[in-house]
Amino acid sequence: MLKHTDAYFEQQLNQLNEKILEMGAAVEMMIANADQALVKRDSNLARQVIRDDQTVDQLEVAIDDLCLAVLALHQPTAIDLRAVIVGLKISTDLERVGDLACNICEQVIELNKEEPLKPYQDLPLMAAKSQKMVREALDAFVNRNAAVARKICEADDEVDDLGHRIYSELNQIMENSSEAVRRGIRLIIVSRQLERVADHATNIAESVNFLVKGEDIRHGA
Amino acid sequence: MLKHTDAYFEQQLNQLNEKILEMGAAVEMMIANADQALVKRDSNLARQVIRDDQTVDQLEVAIDDLCLAVLALHQPTAIDLRAVIVGLKISTDLERVGDLACNICEQVIELNKEEPLKPYQDLPLMAAKSQKMVREALDAFVNRNAAVARKICEADDEVDDLGHRIYSELNQIMENSSEAVRRGIRLIIVSRQLERVADHATNIAESVNFLVKGEDIRHGA
Repeated sequence: MLKHTDAYFEQQLNQLNEKILEMGAAVEMMIANADQALVKRDSNLARQVIRDDQTVDQLEVAIDDLCLAVLALHQPTAIDLRAVIVGLKISTDLERVGDLACNICEQVIELNKEEPLKPYQDLPLMAAKSQKMVREALDAFVNRNAAVARKICEADDEVDDLGHRIYSELNQIMENSSEAVRRGIRLIIVSRQLERVADHATNIAESVNFLVKGEDIRHGA
Repeated sequence: MLKHTDAYFEQQLNQLNEKILEMGAAVEMMIANADQALVKRDSNLARQVIRDDQTVDQLEVAIDDLCLAVLALHQPTAIDLRAVIVGLKISTDLERVGDLACNICEQVIELNKEEPLKPYQDLPLMAAKSQKMVREALDAFVNRNAAVARKICEADDEVDDLGHRIYSELNQIMENSSEAVRRGIRLIIVSRQLERVADHATNIAESVNFLVKGEDIRHGA
């Protein structure tokens, strides 16, 4: 049996990194496009995002297969074992981010059937911030940078604050006009999906910290 | 080094099963209590659920630690390797279910500060169905029963249908009365959290199928 010092093992770990980055780039693009579909009222782009999710789903399955193969063939230990486990966790988080982008796009397609409720300002900001968190978390993964990972966890609070502001504002608009209700609910849902994108970026950052430091910082531990 | 045929390995796998069941029982209780906190307008119970989440978080960390230890010490293969990987996946899903129960309870605490918007009928039904899905998925895990696991995936559609019905009904109520808006949004959020509980039960069922059959049925594969 191959030992985990072999070149083949290195090659498989590199492949794992590459596939995670490929998946990360795909979901980042999905979030960016979901935002554009909302702001530019482009339902075709929204439908494109929903189609793109298939690629992300396939990457999740491929990454899980690869991780299992590495575990079965090479029996890695220490940081190499953590890299594989973290690979599994990150693929789960990225797959969920892809789903969230799709959920946003489903709302966008319905929203685009009516006049816009208001000019969107905070939602694009929230989308940009949560997308940036995903990218930085993956950069931290590539660079094995625990310090950056910890900073990302702090950025999550900014996204949550934006979410609360959007919620209050829409609540008010809906109370003042029954015609705003249907669209207001959809926009609140979009905002909550973006909050969850940021949550998953935080999960990824926590995984990176675990990978590098071997310590679990989840749940404020 | 111990080999995975050892009694110690069996003991660790049993411990993994037990911890997953313990975590499953804890989140099931959280969902049931979140439902009771809503229906009986019991904010103390809601706060209790939020406190209980700490136990679930600790179990997630303990299960991940155990899985890593098993992988590092015993280098399992085939179904034993899948059992460990599935253990990691299920603990992630159960932790999210615990979080969802907490999110529901945060809404319930706010809802209980006002008169109830309407008698709750579909929401308790939805809570009961999604809680049952979690329990059955974990039973399927214990019994290594792929057939039951596949049936659970079908039950998800019923929960989604209930969710759509609740959404439409609340949308209507909110359009008819501005006073209903604040509570209506919160109830829609509760309903969406319950849909996600059912999604996680489906994830667990898919993991069980993978464990038993070694085949990946996610994403309609």
